[in-house]
Amino acid sequence: MAPHILRIDCPDEPGLVHKISGVLFNAGYNVLDNQEFVDLEAKHFFMRTAFEGAAAPDRVIPYLQQVLPASAVVKLATTEKQPVVILATTEAHCLGDLLIRHYSGELPAQIRAVIANHETLGSLVKQFSIPFHCISHKDLDRTEHEKQVIEVIDSYAPEYIVLAKYMRILTPNFVAHYRNRVINIHHSFLPAFIGAKPYHQAYVRGVKIIGATAHIVTDDLDTGPIIAQNVIPVNHTVTAAAMMQAGRDVEKIVLAKAVKLAFEERVFLHGNRTIVFE
Amino acid sequence: MAPHILRIDCPDEPGLVHKISGVLFNAGYNVLDNQEFVDLEAKHFFMRTAFEGAAAPDRVIPYLQQVLPASAVVKLATTEKQPVVILATTEAHCLGDLLIRHYSGELPAQIRAVIANHETLGSLVKQFSIPFHCISHKDLDRTEHEKQVIEVIDSYAPEYIVLAKYMRILTPNFVAHYRNRVINIHHSFLPAFIGAKPYHQAYVRGVKIIGATAHIVTDDLDTGPIIAQNVIPVNHTVTAAAMMQAGRDVEKIVLAKAVKLAFEERVFLHGNRTIVFE
Amino acid sequence: MAPHILRIDCPDEPGLVHKISGVLFNAGYNVLDNQEFVDLEAKHFFMRTAFEGAAAPDRVIPYLQQVLPASAVVKLATTEKQPVVILATTEAHCLGDLLIRHYSGELPAQIRAVIANHETLGSLVKQFSIPFHCISHKDLDRTEHEKQVIEVIDSYAPEYIVLAKYMRILTPNFVAHYRNRVINIHHSFLPAFIGAKPYHQAYVRGVKIIGATAHIVTDDLDTGPIIAQNVIPVNHTVTAAAMMQAGRDVEKIVLAKAVKLAFEERVFLHGNRTIVFE
Amino acid sequence: MAPHILRIDCPDEPGLVHKISGVLFNAGYNVLDNQEFVDLEAKHFFMRTAFEGAAAPDRVIPYLQQVLPASAVVKLATTEKQPVVILATTEAHCLGDLLIRHYSGELPAQIRAVIANHETLGSLVKQFSIPFHCISHKDLDRTEHEKQVIEVIDSYAPEYIVLAKYMRILTPNFVAHYRNRVINIHHSFLPAFIGAKPYHQAYVRGVKIIGATAHIVTDDLDTGPIIAQNVIPVNHTVTAAAMMQAGRDVEKIVLAKAVKLAFEERVFLHGNRTIVFE
Repeated sequence: MAPHILRIDCPDEPGLVHKISGVLFNAGYNVLDNQEFVDLEAKHFFMRTAFEGAAAPDRVIPYLQQVLPASAVVKLATTEKQPVVILATTEAHCLGDLLIRHYSGELPAQIRAVIANHETLGSLVKQFSIPFHCISHKDLDRTEHEKQVIEVIDSYAPEYIVLAKYMRILTPNFVAHYRNRVINIHHSFLPAFIGAKPYHQAYVRGVKIIGATAHIVTDDLDTGPIIAQNVIPVNHTVTAAAMMQAGRDVEKIVLAKAVKLAFEERVFLHGNRTIVFE
Repeated sequence: MAPHILRIDCPDEPGLVHKISGVLFNAGYNVLDNQEFVDLEAKHFFMRTAFEGAAAPDRVIPYLQQVLPASAVVKLATTEKQPVVILATTEAHCLGDLLIRHYSGELPAQIRAVIANHETLGSLVKQFSIPFHCISHKDLDRTEHEKQVIEVIDSYAPEYIVLAKYMRILTPNFVAHYRNRVINIHHSFLPAFIGAKPYHQAYVRGVKIIGATAHIVTDDLDTGPIIAQNVIPVNHTVTAAAMMQAGRDVEKIVLAKAVKLAFEERVFLHGNRTIVFE
Repeated sequence: MAPHILRIDCPDEPGLVHKISGVLFNAGYNVLDNQEFVDLEAKHFFMRTAFEGAAAPDRVIPYLQQVLPASAVVKLATTEKQPVVILATTEAHCLGDLLIRHYSGELPAQIRAVIANHETLGSLVKQFSIPFHCISHKDLDRTEHEKQVIEVIDSYAPEYIVLAKYMRILTPNFVAHYRNRVINIHHSFLPAFIGAKPYHQAYVRGVKIIGATAHIVTDDLDTGPIIAQNVIPVNHTVTAAAMMQAGRDVEKIVLAKAVKLAFEERVFLHGNRTIVFE
Repeated sequence: MAPHILRIDCPDEPGLVHKISGVLFNAGYNVLDNQEFVDLEAKHFFMRTAFEGAAAPDRVIPYLQQVLPASAVVKLATTEKQPVVILATTEAHCLGDLLIRHYSGELPAQIRAVIANHETLGSLVKQFSIPFHCISHKDLDRTEHEKQVIEVIDSYAPEYIVLAKYMRILTPNFVAHYRNRVINIHHSFLPAFIGAKPYHQAYVRGVKIIGATAHIVTDDLDTGPIIAQNVIPVNHTVTAAAMMQAGRDVEKIVLAKAVKLAFEERVFLHGNRTIVFE
């Protein structure tokens, strides 16, 4: 039987670990893995517990409610793979990496569909027997285009939407519709080089390290909570075009890591920061 | 017109750079990029030059022979993509990564065929419209199995053979047949954990960093000249199985890097060491 | 008032977290930081808790003994700086780094003395107003030399002994005398290049990454439990001598990190592996 | 006899390598190491050559002038250690690291003096028998304070001035006085977190990697040409204060690396970018 995941997030107060672990212990569950963190500055408590046992896991909810503050956010998740929809444009490296991981069973999510605003990646997606929807933005205003995209996304009921180099700016309406459920890969080491052409900016600035950032999408472009980052060294011989190529390896690894963390229920948001139980 | 690549490798002597650059200058070529290295201990000279010009590049060969030591190894290479054949077994991550790079035009080589000793990866390869040959080792002795593999490889006349998690030990005959042309990915940070089950060895030893090594295959298993290596941190929470999964990301990036370096003619061998002009 | 540290290490059984956190909660302590880990393979439980409160911390010990398995190892530690003795030979980089950290108050330990088998580093140590003992190994057999070293070490009653490039092999007697309390820095990425001249070995092997390893000393040279490791990239242009120089930066950072982790009571040993709560 | 270093920096044109190497060859010098780079976008040529020979090295200058463009910048440097003056405030980690490297002969420069605007570091510097000048900024306007600092610096005629956590903003006059000769360590991964309190900024932003940047000082604070950068991973458990402490290790290693590169004549400036021949 697959383990269950319990996530709790609430204002800190004394004895929380004792009380929560008591609920699981008294219900006869076996705790496989437990991680908690108290943000002492924000006085906030975060906990992720993997546990197993014969009884239905949701029977613990009322007991937890008795011992937790009223404002606690409690989520019981399954370890079964949840659906994801990927948005892309024309670049294959991030999408392709996710498709290969999905193919080999490594991705802790089910790719239900890929949506793109160009036809370019259609043949790649279809050869993996995954539905591909090209929704061109041509001759559509942003709102109308997004309306069509949202309609297709919602038909798949995904847990998260992953932007795998989707080169369209999202409206606040789209962001609000999937609040805290859209994961983006930004091709720079944020907060450096926010905005367009980060590799070109990095080249002009003469940096010796470039990177990529996976983050939750919020209204402020490229400033949402960061889930994962990584970097690679560069030097004066690396042109802006070569940086872009070298950066692809970082982008795809960082995005895949963020997707894995999110679907394994390891990411908590608190203001503009994330707590990530790796 | 595509640039040409000139590779020279010879015992060191005074004035080599002056003489070689003189040949190219006098022939009217434009040098785009030049890297040289003198191994002061071995007293050996290595040079890689990218140049362009209207004239046929091989006209410089006789002039170079006049100024170089008799034992010099000179190679003129084109920057056009050369053929590669990939050998695999059942794991998809390294092969899949090469296929995606090939698909998007990023790989500086043409994948002509994939050969495997299991059927597992056949559908993945075929969906990229690349020939797949399953040559099972069942009921065959090692020599007979390799004979069949060699026959198929040779029919594609590849520049290099890439072992993308090919889990068969190669005979000296195979290695000699493709001397210095077989690139392997070893799932550990060589020379640590030579041999079988390196991730399990790493777990038992309690290391805090694991890695992968791409190398040229020689008769001594896992001890050939190293082209590229990379590592990732681990800690006590990472099981041997989780190390294996985390290691896959390192393996595929390191192997792809080694393939790129080799096909771009950036790798020189000298004894058991490599000179790599990145 | 300084926080207290509670360390527990015992065979795993259900409800440990609940019971232990209950003891602290009922005693009115405030838990500042808590980390636990269950090695599912070894069925062993590890916990490190930082807590504060008005009451004397050792009053919790009898209550903990009531709820823990009989074989549990329980340690109450203070966060006050404990004494350390450093052993060195002639190289200044690791010792110097620890002295500077000590000078600026960054090291979570008190350097009580430095012992060396050469006079070389005496002036450096003395200028920091720290006792320096030169105990030459000349004209002494190994046992007699160690006897004198042990006598001086013991006069300072250190928590740990740190080998900062101490180039003498220790006898089993010395190791047993300070069981699990001697921290060494090995100038290679163990288990690669065990033994003498690791940088020369690394050069000859042609590796592309070198590293350093801080570990607890056991009878088998260079094979004790690893606390911390780090690496840096090298290439064909780096000679064995240059590797040695570049390696010094890794060695000193890794050793200082291991010393910090050990004195902050973050390192647990289990067989040949470490659990490190960073 | 110590090798000489030749640095050349000029607009690119065909045959430069051939002509320059010809001058050295014809003068009977033995080239030990040679690195050149052509910035194809800027059409600019950079070369660093280490050579040895009996003849006085400056005899090659007139011959080089005959073959180089009129605007070429040619510098002949010795490999003997050149003087450096260090400016600091109260933090010991960067200064201490340079002092230890200097003590052990590892630094390719002679520390002639340390100047600080506080007394704090005086005893540390003096115990290394290096002159320490405290020039307090109290009761002085910025211009008057800098005037006194410049006077002391100039009395030591340093090649470079190194700011080892010198927490004073420099005036354009100071920068112009030591144009391209002031090396600073900035406690962030530039261009992220420009300005004050970068670790606090990094904490608030929730980044997963922090770093440090060594750069040449120009009038625009924190935007001069970058010589070296490095990073370390952080996570949600790392407070702003802990980031600052962890960042110190990166700062000191990056600053020491930049000082080494500069004194070994490996750094060329071109606009706001550096060419660094490592």
